[in-house]
Formats: sequence, C-alpha cells, structure tokens
Amino acid sequence: MQSRTGDSDNIIFIGKKPAMSYVLACVTQFNRNQETVVLKARGRAISHAVDVAEVVRNKFVRDAEVRDIKIATEIIDGESGEKLNVSSIEIVLGKKQ
Amino acid sequence: MQSRTGDSDNIIFIGKKPAMSYVLACVTQFNRNQETVVLKARGRAISHAVDVAEVVRNKFVRDAEVRDIKIATEIIDGESGEKLNVSSIEIVLGKKQ
Repeated sequence: MQSRTGDSDNIIFIGKKPAMSYVLACVTQFNRNQETVVLKARGRAISHAVDVAEVVRNKFVRDAEVRDIKIATEIIDGESGEKLNVSSIEIVLGKKQ
Repeated sequence: MQSRTGDSDNIIFIGKKPAMSYVLACVTQFNRNQETVVLKARGRAISHAVDVAEVVRNKFVRDAEVRDIKIATEIIDGESGEKLNVSSIEIVLGKKQ
C-alpha cells in the first residue's frame, strides 16, 4: 500500500494556513506516488480539511477519491491545564484503482 | 429502515444555533424510534456538525454509531448572483444493531 517514502509522510495536518498550501502539499504527495494521503484536522479546521479534500479531488487530482472519513473526539490540555474535548476528522484520499 | 414518521423527518440541517439545540433535535428523533438521523451542514458549519455527532454519540445516545460520512461540493448563488462552491458534509448516525 505505502510507497517507499514511508508511512507518516502521507499525513497532512490541516491548520490555519490558506487552503491552497495544504492543497499543494497534498498534490505533491500524490506526485511522489503516494497511493493515499490522509488529511487530519481538529476543531474549526475540520471545515477547512473538507474544503482541501474537495479542491484536490475536483481540481487537481481528478483520479483521487475519498476512501474513508472518520470522526472522533480528542482530549487536549487547555491553556490553564484543564482537559478539553475537541472533535477531529481524518479524511483518507486515494487514487482510483 | 424508516420509521412511520417518514423519510425527511430524520434530516437535521446544522447552522449557527448553539450545538446543544441540534443535539436535542437529534436525541428527539432517536427517541421517536427513528433508526437513523442524518446531519447535514455546509461551509463553516461542517465543524459544528461533527461536534454535534460526537456529543450525541458520546453523551446522549450511547448506542448510536456513525454509519456513513459523505463530503461534497455544492454550487450556491452568492449575494451578487455569482456562483460559489461550498463544501458540504452529511453524517449518518444510526442505532447499533
């Protein structure tokens, strides 16, 4: 399944940068013959991750498809040490077989 | 699959209200013996929809699980009549069998 560049290379963490920087990262991974690219995001960046997946799939890597989407709740440390629940998403994009 | 209350009852559109109002709507549907509840959201509300699904599943309807998640791009009319692409999500929650 994985290409020779290894397992963790194909995970892209979506944060606050403009969507196009993540789209570019994603396209680069596919061009390096990664078979799948995983987009991960938490909290408000979740909407952003869906935008990135849709732009990649519709505009740049036309033979990519959504293989799997998982949602979960992660517990993170808040600013004053308290525990916070935050939703997360994982979108697996892959080349159509 | 559907209960006697009909097909469209089980769709909840997630917008800008507080998450708990959608959680309540969702719990109400399950209590009316709906087998599945579908959460739909567009744009920034996508993160909100994931939050609602996670709260319902983890806190209120412990025997609910995520059955399916789909993402898509919808074309909507902008304020000055132009066409805008907006990402959307559809999360299907269902009672565990």
